[in-house]
Amino acid sequence: MRIITIGREFGSGGRELGKRIAEALGIAYYDKEIIDKVANNTKLATDYVQQIIEKKPITYYPITIGNSFNGIDDVLARSNANIYAEQAKVIKELADKSDCVIVGRCADYILRDYHPFRIFVYSDMDSKVNRCIEKGEIEDKGNPKKIRKEIKKIDRNRRHYYEFYTSQRWGDIHNYDVCINTSGRTIKEVVNEILTIFNEKE
Amino acid sequence: MRIITIGREFGSGGRELGKRIAEALGIAYYDKEIIDKVANNTKLATDYVQQIIEKKPITYYPITIGNSFNGIDDVLARSNANIYAEQAKVIKELADKSDCVIVGRCADYILRDYHPFRIFVYSDMDSKVNRCIEKGEIEDKGNPKKIRKEIKKIDRNRRHYYEFYTSQRWGDIHNYDVCINTSGRTIKEVVNEILTIFNEKE
Repeated sequence: MRIITIGREFGSGGRELGKRIAEALGIAYYDKEIIDKVANNTKLATDYVQQIIEKKPITYYPITIGNSFNGIDDVLARSNANIYAEQAKVIKELADKSDCVIVGRCADYILRDYHPFRIFVYSDMDSKVNRCIEKGEIEDKGNPKKIRKEIKKIDRNRRHYYEFYTSQRWGDIHNYDVCINTSGRTIKEVVNEILTIFNEKE
Repeated sequence: MRIITIGREFGSGGRELGKRIAEALGIAYYDKEIIDKVANNTKLATDYVQQIIEKKPITYYPITIGNSFNGIDDVLARSNANIYAEQAKVIKELADKSDCVIVGRCADYILRDYHPFRIFVYSDMDSKVNRCIEKGEIEDKGNPKKIRKEIKKIDRNRRHYYEFYTSQRWGDIHNYDVCINTSGRTIKEVVNEILTIFNEKE
C-alpha cells in the first residue's frame, strides 16, 4: 500500500507537488474531491463544508455554562465535529480503495495506522507571495502586501485546524518523514527529490 | 562555493551523514576539529571549550544587580561569549578556505551570508536510542532508560545553545533547506537522497 500525505504552507507548491507525484507514480490524487464527498455524505453545501474545514474550529464544550446562551456556538461546534468525523471516514475509505496522494486535511494524522509517507512543504514568505502571484491563487494579486496578509491568515487557520483535531504541532518535523523548503525552486525539480526518498524508503 | 551545514538531534546519525556527504563530494568535513582550533586560539583546554559549547549558555547581564554577587557568573558568561565569538571566527575561516561540511555549532546561522545548504536531521526517540546503542555513543549502553534521559539532556543543551546565540528556534523547518527523518533507516540510504537534493539545488 502506497499512501502519501502532504502538509503544506499556502503558496509553497504543495498541491502541484502532490499532483506531480501522483502522476509520476500513476496513483490517485485527492484534494478538493474530499470536500465534495463530505458535502455529499452530509447533505451540506460544498461551499459550507469547505468554509468549515478552512476556518478556525470552534471549541465544543460538552457542559453548558449558564443555560443556552452559547446555543448557536454549540450547534456550530457539533456541526464542525460532524464534518471532521465524516472527512476522516471519507479519507480512510479512499486509502482503503487504492494507493493515493492526499493533500492537507490532517490526512497524515487520520491515516497514521496506515503508516503513510508524510511530506511537509514550506517556503519563505517572499517565495510564497511570488508563487501566489504567478499562479493567481489569491485575488487582488497586484498587491503583495495584501497577499502576504492573506497567506498568513490561511496558514493560521490551517495551523489551528490541524492542531485542534490532531493535538500535534503543524509543521513540526517529528510529524513528517521529510520537510522540504521550496523557496526559489520549481516544483518540477522537487518532485524527483521526493520520489528518490520515497522509493528508497519503500 | 559549496558549504553544507548539518543541524542534528543526538543519535539521529547527523555526524555519519556529514562524513558520508563530504566523502561523496570530496570536500572537507569539520566537527570536533573546530573545538580544537578554538581551544588553540583561546589558549583554553579542549575539554573546557567542549564543555562550554555543549552546555546551556549562561545569560550575561551587562548591568550588575546589587554589587559583585554575580561576579563568578559574569566571568563565566564573558568567557562563553568569547568562546562563541572565537568559534564563529574559526568557522568563517574554514568556509573561506574551501568547500566543506560542518556539523552543528550554529554553522547554519554563523555562515548565513554564505548561503549554505542547510540540513536538519532527526529521528523518533526509539531510533535514537537504538542508534546510540549500536554506535556505543553513550556509556552504560545496556540501559535504554538512561540513554533516553541522556539524549533528552544533550538535545536540550543543543537547543538552548542554538537559541541563545541565533535567536532562532532549533529544528524549526524555516531555518533549513531540508529536514530529514532517519527513523529506522540507514544513513547510507539517506546520503543519496540528500545529494540528489543538493545537486538539483546547485
